[in-house]
Amino acid sequence: MEALGEAEGAAGPGGRRAGLRRHHPATVMWDLPFLPFCALLGVLGFVCVAFVSAWCQYWRGGFALDGSTRTFNWHPVLMVTGMVVLYGAAALVYRLPPAWTGPKLPWKLLHGALALTVFILAVLGLAAVFRFHNEHGTPNMYSLHSWLGLATVLLFSCQWLAGFSAFLLPWAPAWLRALYKPLHVFFGFTILMLSLASCLSGINEKLFFSLKNGTTEYKLLPPEAVFANTLGLLILLFGVLVLGALARPSWKRPDADSPDTRQPLLAAER
Amino acid sequence: MEALGEAEGAAGPGGRRAGLRRHHPATVMWDLPFLPFCALLGVLGFVCVAFVSAWCQYWRGGFALDGSTRTFNWHPVLMVTGMVVLYGAAALVYRLPPAWTGPKLPWKLLHGALALTVFILAVLGLAAVFRFHNEHGTPNMYSLHSWLGLATVLLFSCQWLAGFSAFLLPWAPAWLRALYKPLHVFFGFTILMLSLASCLSGINEKLFFSLKNGTTEYKLLPPEAVFANTLGLLILLFGVLVLGALARPSWKRPDADSPDTRQPLLAAER
Repeated sequence: MEALGEAEGAAGPGGRRAGLRRHHPATVMWDLPFLPFCALLGVLGFVCVAFVSAWCQYWRGGFALDGSTRTFNWHPVLMVTGMVVLYGAAALVYRLPPAWTGPKLPWKLLHGALALTVFILAVLGLAAVFRFHNEHGTPNMYSLHSWLGLATVLLFSCQWLAGFSAFLLPWAPAWLRALYKPLHVFFGFTILMLSLASCLSGINEKLFFSLKNGTTEYKLLPPEAVFANTLGLLILLFGVLVLGALARPSWKRPDADSPDTRQPLLAAER
Repeated sequence: MEALGEAEGAAGPGGRRAGLRRHHPATVMWDLPFLPFCALLGVLGFVCVAFVSAWCQYWRGGFALDGSTRTFNWHPVLMVTGMVVLYGAAALVYRLPPAWTGPKLPWKLLHGALALTVFILAVLGLAAVFRFHNEHGTPNMYSLHSWLGLATVLLFSCQWLAGFSAFLLPWAPAWLRALYKPLHVFFGFTILMLSLASCLSGINEKLFFSLKNGTTEYKLLPPEAVFANTLGLLILLFGVLVLGALARPSWKRPDADSPDTRQPLLAAER
């Protein structure tokens, strides 16, 4: 991914040059404008949310809070919306051209607020599936999907707490923030990969549970199966594009280590 | 991931400095020696292969070529060995310290040969599952796992063919190779992510198929379920560590764009 970005040239969003890296004339052809790419990602994210909602509404009976399968249906919708689409948006905040200039604090607040929204949606998504299981006497936490999904949400919760404590509260010293930042970036990347694997294994599992009899058997590939399999591939495409965008050095905030990076929420404005 | 590497300092494998990037004193503490990391990855890869083999041998009846479930058992073993463990090894070839100096051609040959081995194992792995399905009248290619897995192997086949044509055969002009290289790196990264998602959804699916009755129901979490779920997490850990290692700039071959990069297989030695 690094080699990709490195060879892609150093033109930043809006055509500005970061001026930090070598670039090769032969590879300038791959230079992509960030904002149209971002708009494409936005559309794709919206399509993912629309697809998962339509699947649960049209084929799985819609939504309710009564502990039935209609309560379960909140689980895939909240997880895809939170842990994939909004998570992707939070991860890309610092790639927006307006975030490249001026104080970093508003963008840190936006990043943290989006991540907090993701956390709330993930907790509600987990509550939906636990409520459904408990109502039906089904054990929780036995499948690989559940292990993977819970590990993802727990890791994400630690990531949010550590990020908030280190980057927005004033008591973390600068050296600790500098030390933690690469870990925050690495785990941010890893958590999105875990989210994708969780979503794909979850959709696969749900289709095996739901499509069991007569003409709707999963193996007969009824329209619902085609639709939900396509949803899985769209989620994967969204995630891969977000990870690719994050790895492109030419789309990174050029001065990521300016003094403003170390400006916490409660400190006086400089 | 880029920020991770950038902040990690510029010490290369064996402690040499690539000398290409800034580094921050506060983050030097994260500097890891490549070879011990590589040894750890080797052990982890071996454990993954041992776990998937043990699962199929001990709980799923072992291996055969008779079209029964014992033929199917080759599928997970070959896929984990090829598309995850050997694929990871192939991806990391250029990070080995001896690959940093001297001609690049032997390392290109090793990378291509390992990838060809992965391709052969993947084709055999697909043949095992198709043979099993056809023998039992089960349709092929209906689950999200199968869509994902076949897409991964097809993408990987294109990647191998394009890589071989561009980097080892003599007829691709230098500008085409330079243009294709970042795409090769991006898809190399993406294919490993797809492999991980395919393996995890496949293990999840297989456990739902196999653990159905009495005291071995998946939801009762029998020892086989704990073992295979753990296998899934180990595969994920292996993949995340490979992707993290690939993204570390300080472990990259410092002179990746030397003239030797453009030395194809059939051209005269320089």
